[in-house]
Amino acid sequence: MGKYTIGIDFGSLSGRSLLLDITSGKEMASSVFDYPHGVMDKALPSGERLGNDYALQHPQDYLEVLYHTIPEVINRSGVDPKDIVAIGTDFTACTMIPCKADGTPLCFLDEYKHNPHAWVKLWKHHAAQYEANKLNEIAEKRNESWLKNYGGKISSEWAIPKLMQVCDEAPEIYNAMDRWIEAADWIVWMMTGVETRNSCTAGYKAIWNKRKGYPSKEFFKALNPMLENCVREKLGTEITPLGERAGTITPEFAEKTGLSTDTVVYIGNVDAHVCVPSVSIDGPRKMLAIIGTSTCHILMGEEERQVPGMCGVVEDGVMPGLFGYEAGQSCVGDHFAWLVDNCVPERYYKEADAKGLNIHQYLTSLASKLRVGESGLLALDWWNGNRSVLVDADLTGCMLGMTLATRPEEMYRALIEATAFGTRMIVENFQSNGVPVEEFYASGGIAVKNEMAMQIYSDVLNMPVKIAGSAQGPALGSAIFASVAAGVDNGGYDSVFDAARKLGKVREKYYSPIKENAEVYDRLYAEYKKLHDYFGRGENNVMKTLKKIKSEREN
Amino acid sequence: MGKYTIGIDFGSLSGRSLLLDITSGKEMASSVFDYPHGVMDKALPSGERLGNDYALQHPQDYLEVLYHTIPEVINRSGVDPKDIVAIGTDFTACTMIPCKADGTPLCFLDEYKHNPHAWVKLWKHHAAQYEANKLNEIAEKRNESWLKNYGGKISSEWAIPKLMQVCDEAPEIYNAMDRWIEAADWIVWMMTGVETRNSCTAGYKAIWNKRKGYPSKEFFKALNPMLENCVREKLGTEITPLGERAGTITPEFAEKTGLSTDTVVYIGNVDAHVCVPSVSIDGPRKMLAIIGTSTCHILMGEEERQVPGMCGVVEDGVMPGLFGYEAGQSCVGDHFAWLVDNCVPERYYKEADAKGLNIHQYLTSLASKLRVGESGLLALDWWNGNRSVLVDADLTGCMLGMTLATRPEEMYRALIEATAFGTRMIVENFQSNGVPVEEFYASGGIAVKNEMAMQIYSDVLNMPVKIAGSAQGPALGSAIFASVAAGVDNGGYDSVFDAARKLGKVREKYYSPIKENAEVYDRLYAEYKKLHDYFGRGENNVMKTLKKIKSEREN
Repeated sequence: MGKYTIGIDFGSLSGRSLLLDITSGKEMASSVFDYPHGVMDKALPSGERLGNDYALQHPQDYLEVLYHTIPEVINRSGVDPKDIVAIGTDFTACTMIPCKADGTPLCFLDEYKHNPHAWVKLWKHHAAQYEANKLNEIAEKRNESWLKNYGGKISSEWAIPKLMQVCDEAPEIYNAMDRWIEAADWIVWMMTGVETRNSCTAGYKAIWNKRKGYPSKEFFKALNPMLENCVREKLGTEITPLGERAGTITPEFAEKTGLSTDTVVYIGNVDAHVCVPSVSIDGPRKMLAIIGTSTCHILMGEEERQVPGMCGVVEDGVMPGLFGYEAGQSCVGDHFAWLVDNCVPERYYKEADAKGLNIHQYLTSLASKLRVGESGLLALDWWNGNRSVLVDADLTGCMLGMTLATRPEEMYRALIEATAFGTRMIVENFQSNGVPVEEFYASGGIAVKNEMAMQIYSDVLNMPVKIAGSAQGPALGSAIFASVAAGVDNGGYDSVFDAARKLGKVREKYYSPIKENAEVYDRLYAEYKKLHDYFGRGENNVMKTLKKIKSEREN
Repeated sequence: MGKYTIGIDFGSLSGRSLLLDITSGKEMASSVFDYPHGVMDKALPSGERLGNDYALQHPQDYLEVLYHTIPEVINRSGVDPKDIVAIGTDFTACTMIPCKADGTPLCFLDEYKHNPHAWVKLWKHHAAQYEANKLNEIAEKRNESWLKNYGGKISSEWAIPKLMQVCDEAPEIYNAMDRWIEAADWIVWMMTGVETRNSCTAGYKAIWNKRKGYPSKEFFKALNPMLENCVREKLGTEITPLGERAGTITPEFAEKTGLSTDTVVYIGNVDAHVCVPSVSIDGPRKMLAIIGTSTCHILMGEEERQVPGMCGVVEDGVMPGLFGYEAGQSCVGDHFAWLVDNCVPERYYKEADAKGLNIHQYLTSLASKLRVGESGLLALDWWNGNRSVLVDADLTGCMLGMTLATRPEEMYRALIEATAFGTRMIVENFQSNGVPVEEFYASGGIAVKNEMAMQIYSDVLNMPVKIAGSAQGPALGSAIFASVAAGVDNGGYDSVFDAARKLGKVREKYYSPIKENAEVYDRLYAEYKKLHDYFGRGENNVMKTLKKIKSEREN
């Protein structure tokens, strides 16, 4: 008799459940539910207009995902709910909810629902940049030692700048909230009735450290006197390491979903980090790149190293007992979409149509025929700034080498190559700072769909590139972590390393570097690096100057 | 009773005649004739395949222009041929014809017509690069003083490299030719029966100097022993200054065209240089930019200065008694055409259609709405290398500042701005080398058609920009020079300065710099200049490296 878990992935626009056979690894059924309110960036449900760079969500949407998709995967798979031993979830992060002591989001209360700050601040809510700048300035001035663990900069997307924004703009909401909690932890709380805080989001997004805890009261007071006791009063100090269980589901939740009340619930986790076991990564020196509109790189190491320009290093941040490193590229698939939307002429669409291809497929078919270096083009992949290793949102794109013979497919390929060079910068940056990278895994839409891109990555990195075996990496990863939360006694696993080896999947076919290509890419990469440092490290700040002029002129 | 001249402009694909009333300045009639053989870059008329970078023409096509368009303008205008006192011509240059002592092109002879080297080498015949490199190397090694008069480099497009190619590849053609002559001079020869050589092409394209003559026999011998006596044997040493007459037309030519045998023929001239009086420029310190697919800048000065990066300085090279300076941008309108062909998406064409605009007009209408600096973009206008002031065909394009919000009209405008910055580099280069520029005139397709572009030029240069009053600048210029060749006694003028003031035309409306724009462009130009020098003067040779890799990979 098989045992099963459900992994649930909460993305930016929808949630997805996957029912996994944790003995065989077979994916039994899956179900997707779109958030009814999507991303609220213009107005609240009651009509109040939102400011620039807002991105809010409705917590009820998350609950609806559970109520719709769990019964559906049970139903579709025909599995007996008693054999579903655990649920695991993962979430976008940093996505923050202000709520009362019982977990009720402030936005559920009539008193607060007209205030934008009572709602969920989605990861890509970018309206706290002023606060992030202030935080970084103060942290630098105070010589806060933890700053180096985050590549020297805290992002406006993270928990503390977002909380500072609440204090600045809606102190009444700050006072009214009993809890400032990641959606990742809130959803677990809603299922179990138990409030937990996972080590992954606490470590990467809330400046928590396993050995040193949160920053000091004095630091928080310097940010804003209201925040002096925010750790005790709003954040909570008990942090649970990854792989642990939060509890079992409540009777109400069992009733609403058809699950058994014995079902174990794994603690919260982040969508990118949870993917690591889904590709069978079971230890350090193996980098996973999740390549979609943007790319997130996850890597584990045996030691804590302060690597400049990474997003963060967190003990137990990916798997227990290891240091989890994160880096990122803020624009990857988005580059290619931009090119297709803005730089591909009519005749290409017609030719694609005639061949029965979509435009990406057609451009790829043309770009695939180019030899490495044949286009004479080189680009910097900074259309949306640079997250790693420069950590600079004010950098912008660059392409050079164009002639009157340059064609769209050459620019398309140059942009793909630029993202591969950016990845190599990240890999080399880890290597040269004492965090080895010996294997490279790729998941996400581009990894599973674009063969040319993955061959380019393999050639540029001069490493084999292994591709995720499941199209549902995060949900599979959550189901794997759930099997660990269930434990051996319930048909699961006692270690996530065992579970990863057993349940993670990579495709049989992987990409190997082609020697001739790798040699040419070495030469092109040397040129990329030179431009990268010239424009990115202060020698020529033309991109910032142009941005400054641009913003003056827009006002 | 009015007096008239005909100006005839021989372009790359067609010839055009303009009949001008030289008393009132009225353009009476014009006529265009397309060369039946166009540019031969694949094969000879008899089918022989041509090598890479060949661009040949058929001399009979030039004669046909005369036979078709002269009768047509006489006919259309209703002018009595007796009142047509002179003809002036201008030609593309350097466009070279090998011929016998009586002017018969070798390609007219059965013996030679299957040999590509017996045909006209059009200005853009680029197959003599090997010879040009060799010439420059030898000239540098020998410390030839004239090299500095050409910005330090002789182009593969010019007369001597093209002649070297004949020696290298077809010595029998070299031996068979009695004359190696500019098409500009050959056409005058055909009309008058008199061989002349004009000071403009001799000076700019054949390394001739009014005071020093041609380079020495030793120099030519060093290039190729066959060339030792080429000046005496093939080039001819009598050079006629601009403004002079070559003679009157032959009876046969009078019969074929309907002209009177008294018709004076002005000596040969170059299409760009002949434009100067057509916009009423009558002396030094006034720059004319002829802005089309590429741009040619002509300027006169009272002294000979060696200006690095210009195309050449020639005494009497534009108007008698002054030093004529030439500079150029190898890619201007070609940039915008490239963008339209390769970077403008389908929806823009649909929107343009819906508004009844062509795509350039539509992009211009969108780009016009942008404030200076609002796009955040900056480009280097090197899609076809840089002619002035870097004189480097191996440079390539660059654009930076792109974000995911960047739109095609912003790139379109950035390319126009880049060409304006390139023009400012040229102006400042002359200024700082002692050749003042106090007024700026523009002619050519873009000058007369694109108001936005001309306002940008005015703002970038921070100077008024005056626009040619005739759409047929070269033909008008030739007609004006013809009026000088005719002289006062024939109803013409004794000085080209008088003729220019009387017959040259600029539009009443000119462009004045807008202070606010000029200030922002000053800041953007400072960034352009920094990139220009960084990529163009050897600090980062990435463009050359990419080109090298490209050419390796294409083979």
